[in-house]
Amino acid sequence: MRKNLQWILGHSSSPDIYPKEMVDANVPGNANLDWAIATDMPDWKYGINFKQYRWMEDCWWLYEAKIPSISINSNETLFFISEGIDYQYRILLDGKIIFENEGMFSQVMEPLYAGKNSLLQIWIAPVPKDPLGEKDTNREASQTCKPAVSYGWDWHPRLIPSGIWMDTYLEVRPASRFEDVSLDYILSDDFSVVEITFSAMISGHKSAVLMLTDPDGNKVLQLKAGESATLSNPKLWWCNGYGEPNLYKWDAILYNNNVQVDKMSGIVGFRKVELTMNEGAWNVPDSLPKGRSPTPITITLNGVPVFAKGSNWVNPEIFTGTITHDTYLPLIKLAKEANYNILRCWGGAIINKDSFFDLCDLHGIMVWQDFPLACNDYRGTPEYLKVLEQEARAIIKRLKHHACLVLWCGGNELFNSWSKMTDQSPALRLLNKLCYELDFDRPFIMTSPICGMGHGNYLFRYSDGREVYQVMPEASKTAYAEFGVPSISNRSCIEAAAKESDVFPMQLNDITVAHHAFTAWDGDTASWACLGIISDYFGEAKTLDDLIVWSQWLQSEGYKCIYEEARRQKPFCSMALNWCFNEPWPTIANNSIVNYPAEPKTSFSAVTDACRPLMSSARIPKFSWRGGEVFSIELWLLNDSHSPITPGKVDVSLEIDSKVYPVDTWCYNGTVANENLKGPRVELKLPELEVDGFTEMKLILSANELSSQYRLLYKS
Amino acid sequence: MRKNLQWILGHSSSPDIYPKEMVDANVPGNANLDWAIATDMPDWKYGINFKQYRWMEDCWWLYEAKIPSISINSNETLFFISEGIDYQYRILLDGKIIFENEGMFSQVMEPLYAGKNSLLQIWIAPVPKDPLGEKDTNREASQTCKPAVSYGWDWHPRLIPSGIWMDTYLEVRPASRFEDVSLDYILSDDFSVVEITFSAMISGHKSAVLMLTDPDGNKVLQLKAGESATLSNPKLWWCNGYGEPNLYKWDAILYNNNVQVDKMSGIVGFRKVELTMNEGAWNVPDSLPKGRSPTPITITLNGVPVFAKGSNWVNPEIFTGTITHDTYLPLIKLAKEANYNILRCWGGAIINKDSFFDLCDLHGIMVWQDFPLACNDYRGTPEYLKVLEQEARAIIKRLKHHACLVLWCGGNELFNSWSKMTDQSPALRLLNKLCYELDFDRPFIMTSPICGMGHGNYLFRYSDGREVYQVMPEASKTAYAEFGVPSISNRSCIEAAAKESDVFPMQLNDITVAHHAFTAWDGDTASWACLGIISDYFGEAKTLDDLIVWSQWLQSEGYKCIYEEARRQKPFCSMALNWCFNEPWPTIANNSIVNYPAEPKTSFSAVTDACRPLMSSARIPKFSWRGGEVFSIELWLLNDSHSPITPGKVDVSLEIDSKVYPVDTWCYNGTVANENLKGPRVELKLPELEVDGFTEMKLILSANELSSQYRLLYKS
Repeated sequence: MRKNLQWILGHSSSPDIYPKEMVDANVPGNANLDWAIATDMPDWKYGINFKQYRWMEDCWWLYEAKIPSISINSNETLFFISEGIDYQYRILLDGKIIFENEGMFSQVMEPLYAGKNSLLQIWIAPVPKDPLGEKDTNREASQTCKPAVSYGWDWHPRLIPSGIWMDTYLEVRPASRFEDVSLDYILSDDFSVVEITFSAMISGHKSAVLMLTDPDGNKVLQLKAGESATLSNPKLWWCNGYGEPNLYKWDAILYNNNVQVDKMSGIVGFRKVELTMNEGAWNVPDSLPKGRSPTPITITLNGVPVFAKGSNWVNPEIFTGTITHDTYLPLIKLAKEANYNILRCWGGAIINKDSFFDLCDLHGIMVWQDFPLACNDYRGTPEYLKVLEQEARAIIKRLKHHACLVLWCGGNELFNSWSKMTDQSPALRLLNKLCYELDFDRPFIMTSPICGMGHGNYLFRYSDGREVYQVMPEASKTAYAEFGVPSISNRSCIEAAAKESDVFPMQLNDITVAHHAFTAWDGDTASWACLGIISDYFGEAKTLDDLIVWSQWLQSEGYKCIYEEARRQKPFCSMALNWCFNEPWPTIANNSIVNYPAEPKTSFSAVTDACRPLMSSARIPKFSWRGGEVFSIELWLLNDSHSPITPGKVDVSLEIDSKVYPVDTWCYNGTVANENLKGPRVELKLPELEVDGFTEMKLILSANELSSQYRLLYKS
Repeated sequence: MRKNLQWILGHSSSPDIYPKEMVDANVPGNANLDWAIATDMPDWKYGINFKQYRWMEDCWWLYEAKIPSISINSNETLFFISEGIDYQYRILLDGKIIFENEGMFSQVMEPLYAGKNSLLQIWIAPVPKDPLGEKDTNREASQTCKPAVSYGWDWHPRLIPSGIWMDTYLEVRPASRFEDVSLDYILSDDFSVVEITFSAMISGHKSAVLMLTDPDGNKVLQLKAGESATLSNPKLWWCNGYGEPNLYKWDAILYNNNVQVDKMSGIVGFRKVELTMNEGAWNVPDSLPKGRSPTPITITLNGVPVFAKGSNWVNPEIFTGTITHDTYLPLIKLAKEANYNILRCWGGAIINKDSFFDLCDLHGIMVWQDFPLACNDYRGTPEYLKVLEQEARAIIKRLKHHACLVLWCGGNELFNSWSKMTDQSPALRLLNKLCYELDFDRPFIMTSPICGMGHGNYLFRYSDGREVYQVMPEASKTAYAEFGVPSISNRSCIEAAAKESDVFPMQLNDITVAHHAFTAWDGDTASWACLGIISDYFGEAKTLDDLIVWSQWLQSEGYKCIYEEARRQKPFCSMALNWCFNEPWPTIANNSIVNYPAEPKTSFSAVTDACRPLMSSARIPKFSWRGGEVFSIELWLLNDSHSPITPGKVDVSLEIDSKVYPVDTWCYNGTVANENLKGPRVELKLPELEVDGFTEMKLILSANELSSQYRLLYKS
């Protein structure tokens, strides 16, 4: 029996000083947000209002709740349970400290010996700031397991949540109960048999039975705690595009003299996941003195090498306490709709709540999970390692039963100059050790990028003048784990952040900077608005809508180019993840393909097209063309599926100013499952037309359900 | 009190069948060798006699000893102790199995409850052969912790030792005794204070005291078990070339009512070792999409980045049971004489006996220690991982107190195509975990080469025609962990292996192949004799001595070129280790610079010159010159020491046919400690002389104690 409490909260300069004012608190939720709402502070999403929240970083928050009268039998215990409190805190019962901890991912489960009208209090300390970190930057996050992103990022304001962010309640638990239940399995090498073991930690001397129900609702297995049993021809869990994400349901029931006294339920998807060597990667390097070969990064699911298509996922809300199943649902549906089969949960952000993983299990979205380290040198002090170990153990224990989870990763960009961690860093050696001990079968990598992988850039056109059309075919990486093309946001998103006069004509001001249009990281060229690039192609924008349309045009075609080029490089390449999928607040410009909270940009459709399992594709040499030039492209069929492509043809044409110019026809013999086919190069001398500035030149590959289109630029 | 036993041995097809014949056994030793000696088998070192030993791989060996009458008090226990038995074995007392194990690096310590005339027997199983490994190759070693090299290598015959290879004895131990003693220390950041903790596991309730004696013999500290104490200004342990390898001695004494009842002693060298990033390596890679930066491989000792100069060490005997302190002594002395500061103990061979590490402690030779994995895919079966964990724990525990030990490494060439292991391999993740848990402060790498490092080649002239003079300056690696230049062996070594008529004229026959002159690994070009390369430079040899001299000339100058070029690339490069230092039997050709058992080749002097801490050096574009060509070199001063180089000059000249041709003089301003100085390019048009075939052209850099010489080739 669970019981929620009625919480109030206030702030103080010290845990020795009771707050001057207490307001209603939402649990789960965030103290800063609740305080802001209760005191009518302006909307944090709008303009630069978030800066008014800054003082909250350094105060102590007090949550307080009276414990209601609860009748407890002599063989029962009252527990206070919290799935997570953000970040350093102490819990007091009637003024006495009963628990203290640092770390937001660890569960609290404390027996409460409460009297009548007992008072539960939770003091949360000011947010941690590494004294060696540069002030006011995310370098302050380098000795903490608190997500670094809250300290400010190039798509996230500095706004650091605190509070009881996960489900938190009282529970009366019987003496005879499940302390823990686990269902482990081993798939046979040919995947035809699964051996299932049911283990239970039980308080009290009782018997436990597990029942397994298949995806169609049939009971297929029953076994006692401590027993193993086999199931033939299990329906395997597959990721999106490769099959059904079959899930079995289990119910573990605890009996005392044939009376049910406790029950736990869960789901399980049977699958085997490995990181296998990318085809051809053992031949790299090919010169002497010889280095090592790349690290394997092909996700092989149930024996099938998958081309991992997806995106980098970030926290969908700044105030992570407000995230629920309903926050995740539209986003995960969009990820599936985009033909993605994987999301990388990036290490600067939170470890998501259970409902995220439940949805990914259900929709066949594989999850690459970073531990909470990003872009810093997380030094291996004994204090930091202690917290990291505790948090990592909690994270692994909470998530390891999810079929969707395919990869642990130590954190983001740790082996690069801006982080300066290495294979020697104790934090990463510790994470490798913990994953080995607690989750032996799941792959682990120390960071991303690692040997052989490519990371970045985040532009349609690089500072050296090359476009992604030229850069990508020259790259030869086993995975593209983060590539970005920014755009200006949808109008609705911009309007949630600013007045039109703040953003058009678009120029550097407090609001455009705060919402990432300018000086995002590296001066103008790396500002996400990329006005210089846009005007070079399209001229000066007359309206905000022009700017949005043009910018999203570049983002759409840029992403289409990169995803498809990565797929053409299969099997040496086995992964393409753009930066990023979603965003936690209304940006004015960002690399995401979905605006806050769940609004697709134009690029979402382009990416959806580019990630279809079966499709025709063109390797295009550049974006902008002029009349008289020879338009020359390479044709491909891309196949990431269990299906072959049967013989057929691709009719290639260009459409300029509503007029169609046939280019060529490719009659192909088809491909076997999961293999691409390289086709011929086709060419056309472009007609010389008079256009005013520019017009769209549409490249059409007409091939029934494999058809593809590209929107290029034509100038006189 | 220790007591050795008198052992006899014999062989059988099964442990159920007592051997037909028993002979005297040496313990420590090897069964195969003892049997061969007792039965007058021909010398395994000579010709192809070793092939006659092949049957011994597959027999069961029985060691047997009577337990002598030993008087034991009621508070004492008789133990059977073995430091190592090679490889799978069971121990029987009076016909009953008292211990069974797989693994030659784990200690056996079993209490013996022996009666009068009790019989101790040890049955050793046939050598392990992975059923999935290719037959008759070292692939058979891929599911064992037995050194792979015994299964045959390009410098080691297939000859697999078995037996009681480490010290083995009976010991009567009192009830009150040390079970274990450890002395741990933490050096302050400025190395001025060391905090020492003394821990003891004691049987019986007694008091223990530790006394510490400094390198000059003064007692400097006394502390009780469980206590810590600090020592100011400790004399640090330094590697060769950077300071004295200062060692402190400790004595731990166990008292019972003020009476000494047990004592343990040991040595300790206070030093801090880290793997730090190579200077400039954070700037690699410099293009997008971006990969990771190299792994750090600079050994930083007591805060000073050391240029690691050394070699790959292999087992100095095939019959590893015969190795003693006296086997190691001349070799370690040579390593020090060669100006080496490091030896890499290569993973295909044994983990050396304690006396090796004692000598390295004493002589300031740092040790990079591979675990026993090499050039195979050591699959992570539960059976293999269990043995690996047991063996790795034993190895770490035995060696971790040595100051000389600076680096653990998972094994040799595991991340390359011929091994096919990766960061995902459970064996390597396990080793990371164990080193982290048991030896936190010591660096660990999974294999060599890793990201940024270079490995190979093993030729003076590559198959594409480029010499090391051209290859090395184009390479840009953080470390050269294995580079080889082969030569034909010294005459004395060859004569231990073959008759002169077997080896001259040198051609492919059973003996030259067996002793590695031909088909060592990759056909003729990779045969260690390299006759084609020799004749291209020098013409056809008329005598064996010509061949030896010419071949060793190439090896000498090749090694000199590579070591010095690696040093010129400092600080981006921080390590140069040739393949290899020594050899375990008389080869006819090999990459070693010391022939079996401890005979320096000509190249030993060249390497000694090239590794001097302070020296002048020339970057030379090629080996062979003709009259009329412009001889052009780049001058350098190399400094791997705490000393600066004061201003001075280098007189550069060439000596051809006893005539000296001055080239130029470089007046330099000197360098600070531990930094090189790049000097000018100097040139000379070579005189056009008539020579018969070729003559030596000596390049002389005359600069007092920094002087250097190079022996090049001059042709008309």
